[in-house]
Amino acid sequence: MSKHATFAGQLVIIGFGSIGQGSLPLILRHFDMDPSRITIITADERGRDVAEKYGIRFIINPLTPDNYRQNLTHLLGDGDFLLNVSVDVSSLALIELCWERGALYLDTCIEPWAGGYTDPSLSPSLRSNYALREQALKLRAKGGPRKPTAVLTHGANPGLVSHFIKQGLLDIARDSGLDVDEPETREEWAELAERLGVKTIHVAERDTQVANVPKKVGEFVNTWSIDGFVGEGCQPAELGWGTHERHWPDDAQRHDFGCDAAIYLMRPGASTRVRTWTPREGNFHGFLITHSESISTADFYTVRDGDDVRYRPTVHYAYHPCDDAVTSLHELAGKNWEIQPEIRLMGREIVDGIDELGVLLAGHDKGAYWFGSQLSIDEARDLAPHNTATSLQVTASVLGGMVWALENPQRGMVEPEDVDFQRILEIATPYLGPVVGAYTDWTPLAGRGQLFPEDLDHDDPWQFKNVRVC
Amino acid sequence: MSKHATFAGQLVIIGFGSIGQGSLPLILRHFDMDPSRITIITADERGRDVAEKYGIRFIINPLTPDNYRQNLTHLLGDGDFLLNVSVDVSSLALIELCWERGALYLDTCIEPWAGGYTDPSLSPSLRSNYALREQALKLRAKGGPRKPTAVLTHGANPGLVSHFIKQGLLDIARDSGLDVDEPETREEWAELAERLGVKTIHVAERDTQVANVPKKVGEFVNTWSIDGFVGEGCQPAELGWGTHERHWPDDAQRHDFGCDAAIYLMRPGASTRVRTWTPREGNFHGFLITHSESISTADFYTVRDGDDVRYRPTVHYAYHPCDDAVTSLHELAGKNWEIQPEIRLMGREIVDGIDELGVLLAGHDKGAYWFGSQLSIDEARDLAPHNTATSLQVTASVLGGMVWALENPQRGMVEPEDVDFQRILEIATPYLGPVVGAYTDWTPLAGRGQLFPEDLDHDDPWQFKNVRVC
Ligand SMILES: NC(=O)c1ccc[n+]([C@@H]2O[C@H](COP(=O)([O-])OP(=O)(O)OC[C@H]3O[C@@H](n4cnc5c(N)ncnc54)[C@H](O)[C@@H]3O)[C@@H](O)[C@H]2O)c1
Ligand SMILES: NC(=O)c1ccc[n+]([C@@H]2O[C@H](COP(=O)([O-])OP(=O)(O)OC[C@H]3O[C@@H](n4cnc5c(N)ncnc54)[C@H](O)[C@@H]3O)[C@@H](O)[C@H]2O)c1
Repeated sequence: MSKHATFAGQLVIIGFGSIGQGSLPLILRHFDMDPSRITIITADERGRDVAEKYGIRFIINPLTPDNYRQNLTHLLGDGDFLLNVSVDVSSLALIELCWERGALYLDTCIEPWAGGYTDPSLSPSLRSNYALREQALKLRAKGGPRKPTAVLTHGANPGLVSHFIKQGLLDIARDSGLDVDEPETREEWAELAERLGVKTIHVAERDTQVANVPKKVGEFVNTWSIDGFVGEGCQPAELGWGTHERHWPDDAQRHDFGCDAAIYLMRPGASTRVRTWTPREGNFHGFLITHSESISTADFYTVRDGDDVRYRPTVHYAYHPCDDAVTSLHELAGKNWEIQPEIRLMGREIVDGIDELGVLLAGHDKGAYWFGSQLSIDEARDLAPHNTATSLQVTASVLGGMVWALENPQRGMVEPEDVDFQRILEIATPYLGPVVGAYTDWTPLAGRGQLFPEDLDHDDPWQFKNVRVC
Repeated sequence: MSKHATFAGQLVIIGFGSIGQGSLPLILRHFDMDPSRITIITADERGRDVAEKYGIRFIINPLTPDNYRQNLTHLLGDGDFLLNVSVDVSSLALIELCWERGALYLDTCIEPWAGGYTDPSLSPSLRSNYALREQALKLRAKGGPRKPTAVLTHGANPGLVSHFIKQGLLDIARDSGLDVDEPETREEWAELAERLGVKTIHVAERDTQVANVPKKVGEFVNTWSIDGFVGEGCQPAELGWGTHERHWPDDAQRHDFGCDAAIYLMRPGASTRVRTWTPREGNFHGFLITHSESISTADFYTVRDGDDVRYRPTVHYAYHPCDDAVTSLHELAGKNWEIQPEIRLMGREIVDGIDELGVLLAGHDKGAYWFGSQLSIDEARDLAPHNTATSLQVTASVLGGMVWALENPQRGMVEPEDVDFQRILEIATPYLGPVVGAYTDWTPLAGRGQLFPEDLDHDDPWQFKNVRVC
């Protein structure tokens, strides 16, 4: 397999769950590096066998606000790399440390210290991803542009999907017969989205993976981090709020700080359903789980006239996790969001299914366009060890993000929108199975109101009011 | 096994799905009768092997409004029995025919002809179980009390649960140290419920049965009739509306005809969630699926001062079907209630689980009391062939109702509330596994409002507003 980069520093991997274990073989395959330079620091035994198989140092030492400096400082120096794929360890604390030490950094979500997602002493606004991102932006402003590169939220989603959006916009432009140069600045990208008339962007995901072991009562089952999913599922539902929206949701709130590109609902995303569409599944109900990309892309694709916002798309996640996770969520809601006594991250027991993950760009002249990956469990297993269809979409993007960071080591803090999307897609695509673009004339009004009258806006199908399931 | 009755007539069984197949071995076991007197008329091949095993005549001939008289009249005469365990065949048409022919009758729900539950040309009010029951009551009034006995809606629920309610009321009275004679009339039963202060009755069911075959995409999986469940799930959510309620739901409607004991919501029950509790599961979210007992028991337990309603409990179903059915419902909702291309009634592939089915009598001085059956798949299989935990709770009650009808052949049309509850429990209980009563101090306010503020009535936990999941 082709080596994408030579890496002569130390690599510290924090957390070694589904994403850590899935990333390691890709890193070893595509970096020209000595495995003895890798150290894993994690909180439990999971993955020890995988680390041992590759001969990687494996240290169990849960990081906390009190001990992380002591445990990490000596491992990080100029040109080293910290890959954070843990839960419960503050991304921002790690970035500050990396900057002090001259090390590169990548994570797949902005993680707070343990309990941050569900601390009832914080207001819902402060428990949001919006607030976490604003803290990150503050740190970015403080750090300035010449710090070592710290790639924020660069997994599948957030991460890869931001690159899918750019590719999708270019595809629509091409298919609409527009003569468009590839945008070079944020402003140009936002103007392209505006020009095309994209009203709404769904990160539309349908995970159909199933196992031959039934979910037990009192067990949360998922294809990736249960802690991660429950944490974000209990955060407020959040969405980038587009300029075409004319129905303010009853339970919506604006934040009184920051970029103002997104709003939140006064309820957990894991109880908030939305209508969406993917090519293989057709229309379905997903959960409006908060995600960093809902905020960062809404911000990125904002067009301003002076201080006024002239254009912004509505952006949100519409996630149908694997069926066992759907029943796990139903059970969790029934227990008032107190997590099940047992958790199970599906792995070898998966017998079938795909993770169909992409972006639905909707409301333009050509209707809606989905662009994304349809990776099956079988293909994922053929492509890389220790991965599922879900993890490989993430780890391929982790790989891509790491390569880009090594190639661009002095960019300071970057979000996926700031990264060269073509370079990432070039590296990740071989691991994504079929990567397809598909148009549809489906809208959230299709098939509605047959058995019961529904309160709909028939003049504009892509109003969030029509998308939301009540 | 003890014979409960001698039966010398003809028995016609309409429909031979999960309930038909499960009923047959119980009938053959407990009736002193010649199997050659049984005829099965059904719409498809399902169960042919079971019929053949017992040497029963098996005719595939889907009944319609046009052909049912021609196909049934010659099979039914004085003292014969028509057991209707089909879908899509009108209960009322069959009862009229039975009355003409002098035959006894039993069914497990009031079924309309095909399409009646989801006919968009009917108003939601007319697609309700309330409307179906009012039609039945009209037929009862026309028929008068001396007609051959026709037992309406006598499965598990509706059916058995009405007997559980009576037993539960007597248990609470006893445990409260009240000196109560067993009520003999409807009025006395209603006054007992009022005296105890029962505000709400949930038919609280948690089916935990799981299979070793995962649900496929595009497949509706359930432990009993998929057609039956989807039909009732698409009807409006319906509930008996209690006199203690002080928050009228935004989406609620009264019917403008009939007994007025129940209301309906302008949405499918399959998308309407409520909080409830069973002893094994604890608190959980169930679906407010419309059921005949929500209406008939609310009507039965009404106390009037002249024309004024002085007391009535809120009564509704709170159904957590098996996990595969929960995801099937989620999928169905995502397809705007258009049923999946494939259906699978779980049978031999079930590997574990119980059907915990009972009534939660709540809001009285002792908090809440659940009385019901906790039948496991293993015990069900030990007790009777061709049954699951779900079907056996139904078929045991079918057996009880048939015995009672044979013992009381001239009662005209009866609902479960009109039947001798002790006789039924005597016959059914050996098939119900553990039958338990359990008190709880759980209320729908427990654990609420932790992550997000919720609009609750803290003064009365058992307001429907608190029970409903929004
Ligand atoms: N952007 C994306 O597409 C995407 C997708 C999947 C996961 N993620 C994120 O990636 C992270 C990892 O996901 P996963 O599925 O591998 O999770 P996981 O639950 O499988 O593993 C988490 C790992 O973190 C370790 N950990 C927990 N507490 C720790 C601590 N205090 N110090 C050090 N290590 C600790 C655990 O021991 C475990 O190895 C999560 O934050 C998740 O939200 C992002
Ligand atoms: N009260 C209760 O507790 C309870 C519980 C379960 C089922 N039910 C009811 O019992 C009935 C049967 O349930 P099931 O689980 O056995 O259903 P099922 O779907 O397994 O079987 C239905 C049967 O009806 C037959 N049928 C369909 N159309 C017909 C027609 N036109 N003429 C004759 N037969 C026809 C089918 O061939 C099949 O044999 C349903 O109405 C259901 O709602 C009641």
